[in-house]
Amino acid sequence: MAGPRGEYRKTAERRTQILDAALEVFSKNGYTASSVNEIARVVGISQTGVLHHFTGGKMALLRAVLERRDAAARELLGDKQGRDFLRAMVEVSRTQRAQRGVVQLYTILAAEATDPDHPAHAYFTERFQVIADAVTRAYEQVRSDGGLREGVDPRRAALSSLASIEGLQLLWLDGLDVDIAEDSARLISSFLIEPI
Amino acid sequence: MAGPRGEYRKTAERRTQILDAALEVFSKNGYTASSVNEIARVVGISQTGVLHHFTGGKMALLRAVLERRDAAARELLGDKQGRDFLRAMVEVSRTQRAQRGVVQLYTILAAEATDPDHPAHAYFTERFQVIADAVTRAYEQVRSDGGLREGVDPRRAALSSLASIEGLQLLWLDGLDVDIAEDSARLISSFLIEPI
Repeated sequence: MAGPRGEYRKTAERRTQILDAALEVFSKNGYTASSVNEIARVVGISQTGVLHHFTGGKMALLRAVLERRDAAARELLGDKQGRDFLRAMVEVSRTQRAQRGVVQLYTILAAEATDPDHPAHAYFTERFQVIADAVTRAYEQVRSDGGLREGVDPRRAALSSLASIEGLQLLWLDGLDVDIAEDSARLISSFLIEPI
Repeated sequence: MAGPRGEYRKTAERRTQILDAALEVFSKNGYTASSVNEIARVVGISQTGVLHHFTGGKMALLRAVLERRDAAARELLGDKQGRDFLRAMVEVSRTQRAQRGVVQLYTILAAEATDPDHPAHAYFTERFQVIADAVTRAYEQVRSDGGLREGVDPRRAALSSLASIEGLQLLWLDGLDVDIAEDSARLISSFLIEPI
């Protein structure tokens, strides 16, 4: 008999299936042209079944897909500090080279969400603030360790690194000859005495 | 009596009025929520009147607004070369600090257009290629003049500058403490022996 623990596991598995399908559908069609109905079809359940797990509908699914991506990045970053943190940032970009669909989805949503009325606006502004602060701390740590080039301000270096990562993703998606991991590594290294 | 020349001037004026209205409406509501009808209302003409000048409808209006923005940038860049070209790029960013609506519109459309099926996809990929090539030539010129730092590759510097400008716009729109002109100038200067 499936006890509460079994039920919980089943729910988690179903949520994972739904998010895999949402990512597949969003990446293939883009967010606007995707429907909860199509995502349900990929999972092989009804639309009501999807909405049972994600009551907020399509936007809730998108948010969950992006949060899962953030969780994967957080796993790579762990509690790393200083140079190790900066190296892990590049590692995150490296894994994203194999996930064009997610990067595109993220890029479109981040741009749409610059509109203060967009439902994901608070999510993105908060997310950028949190990341910018974490990267600033990493450069400060490098400075404490004597590894920062003279005249480099940790906050400006952090914002420049973050802007570069966002911009490289856009240029990469549009077919320019950039490498979202190696070009980020080059910029980050330009702030350091020893390249990462 | 209005001869052909008078007619031509009248048409040009009407097109300018329509584009001013389109920019106003797009910037206020975002592209998706805007309608040709509302743009027509702002001009004080009928929807048919707008479509007479822009047969491609809303997407044609957006494209024309963006092309007008590009034309303004081209005017600042002129036939400048080397350091002067790089300085003019920063000047373009400086003028954009006063045009949040246009920058937001551009950012959203550039992201949406990463989708190969998007009607503006060719426009953006081509545009990025043209700009990347022009910036590369500027850094090559600086190198010829002996002003490039040792070990800096003009192509990588150009793509890094372009990525940075795109990324800074996104962070700026989301309220981060960046200056789209001064932070670009700092990055560009990092490739040069003398800051611009």
